[in-house]
Amino acid sequence: MHALTTQADGGTRVRPTAVPEPEPRHDQAVVEVRAVSVNRGDLSLLGMLPPGSRLGFDVTGTVVRAAADGSGPPAGTRVAGVADRDGWSERVALSTARLAPLPDGVGWTDAAAVPVAGLTALYALRQAGSVLGRAVLVTGASGGVGRIAVQLARAAGAEVHAWAGSPERLKGLTGLGAAGTSTYEAGPGATPPVHVLVDSVGGEVLRSAYQLVRQRGVVVCYGNTTRSDLSLPFDWGNARPGVRIRYLHLFDEMPRRTVGDDLALLLRLVAEKALDPQVALVGEWSDPEPVLRSVGDRQVNGKAVLVR
Amino acid sequence: MHALTTQADGGTRVRPTAVPEPEPRHDQAVVEVRAVSVNRGDLSLLGMLPPGSRLGFDVTGTVVRAAADGSGPPAGTRVAGVADRDGWSERVALSTARLAPLPDGVGWTDAAAVPVAGLTALYALRQAGSVLGRAVLVTGASGGVGRIAVQLARAAGAEVHAWAGSPERLKGLTGLGAAGTSTYEAGPGATPPVHVLVDSVGGEVLRSAYQLVRQRGVVVCYGNTTRSDLSLPFDWGNARPGVRIRYLHLFDEMPRRTVGDDLALLLRLVAEKALDPQVALVGEWSDPEPVLRSVGDRQVNGKAVLVR
Repeated sequence: MHALTTQADGGTRVRPTAVPEPEPRHDQAVVEVRAVSVNRGDLSLLGMLPPGSRLGFDVTGTVVRAAADGSGPPAGTRVAGVADRDGWSERVALSTARLAPLPDGVGWTDAAAVPVAGLTALYALRQAGSVLGRAVLVTGASGGVGRIAVQLARAAGAEVHAWAGSPERLKGLTGLGAAGTSTYEAGPGATPPVHVLVDSVGGEVLRSAYQLVRQRGVVVCYGNTTRSDLSLPFDWGNARPGVRIRYLHLFDEMPRRTVGDDLALLLRLVAEKALDPQVALVGEWSDPEPVLRSVGDRQVNGKAVLVR
Repeated sequence: MHALTTQADGGTRVRPTAVPEPEPRHDQAVVEVRAVSVNRGDLSLLGMLPPGSRLGFDVTGTVVRAAADGSGPPAGTRVAGVADRDGWSERVALSTARLAPLPDGVGWTDAAAVPVAGLTALYALRQAGSVLGRAVLVTGASGGVGRIAVQLARAAGAEVHAWAGSPERLKGLTGLGAAGTSTYEAGPGATPPVHVLVDSVGGEVLRSAYQLVRQRGVVVCYGNTTRSDLSLPFDWGNARPGVRIRYLHLFDEMPRRTVGDDLALLLRLVAEKALDPQVALVGEWSDPEPVLRSVGDRQVNGKAVLVR
């Protein structure tokens, strides 16, 4: 079978290459892959891994061999799951604890977009506890995780405020449930105080957004796209007693979570039309380079998917 | 009766003044005060309150009237507790939920030093969960809270590292249970990685200490004596997935805690000689100015107490 692997030549970064069939552990199902998504984390890894390396976390497809230990769904079931960085493949072994069946009506491209972005947004919000009736500010709201975080916070009863880098990027966010949208340039003046801040931008954007965080507020960072120092004003704590700041890394968080159940929850929301994974770009698995380039250049306002 | 109140003239900042007897709520006991402590927080308030204002949180003395609702100890019981900023008085009404009886053998000066500093240190450490066998770094370790935090962390089974501003200030900390001591100047090189950082200094000291914080580490700040911006390196989160930063303000935290029980716990540790409140300066309630001045000038390596 074939998998996309990193290449030695600089021009094409990944290419279908012959690899061995997956050898599942007793708690893994083998899945015939139908679609995968391209996350920015995949691109970061791509730049660090030696030639011939496998890639890919977000996978959807059909179970062709159930797990030997009897866990998980039988052969023939459509599933989505989180792979062990080997998901950009024709077939892959997925832990049954990290996959969930697709509800009827959820297609391959939407399903492929859900696992990493959806779980990151879900676990970010879970840090905050109940957000019912509370104000939540999402920065980087035009990105794949941001667009899902806006929808999940709204579905949880929050008043959601969405920040992004430009008026163009803010398009569509009101339709996803944001009560207010604002560019970074506008600063904190146009947004009310918030109980929860979900940030992936860091630097000046985080410092600006932090001014809105209330007493006992919760700040969840899941990225730092500007690669800036964390810089907050001297009264960051004393003016907000009990404030909490947490850095969430999905692969650090997953071992403590019921990933399969949480993925099932997200897919159910997709089936119920309460969550749109916001697939903004679809390409061919056999020719991934155009999609990779668009994601790397931040040209995708949402998720990017490769289909087989 | 008399209480220490703020004065209009700049020279003497507080002075015994005639005030009304306390009028207890149904859940308050009236206590004849024997000793109070002077916290830096008292001095901050002193500078902000209008003339004639009452002060004081840390109180110890004897119950002269039990609470009307039957809660708390009977008249004649020696207690320590947290007052509502009116503790620097001959008599004061204390909520029974915020006081605890003194065990035999615990004297007035030690007891007066425990409530605010001890509860702050205890609640700071509780943010970290179990520290058994884990490394804990305490900055500002020579201060009143710092010296208690070092002892509580050690009593909880931690390997404790203590940082302070000079070799003189580090004196005695090894005897309190610190496995290692270091000046701020020495930087992070002399201290191993830690799971928990308890900081009250902020600025460059916090940035330096933060370099030692491990994955899923916990940073608890309860002050920012340098009044500096929070500044951490760009990989503050990504290099430590799951890291948590929390600002603890005692008066924000207390409503969520069983303060009376926690105070009883601290006083029992004092009775058992497992905790020394480190009273470093004792003055007369009737002439508080010398003690206030020493606390304000950071001349006290530990706690300062006024006795009646």
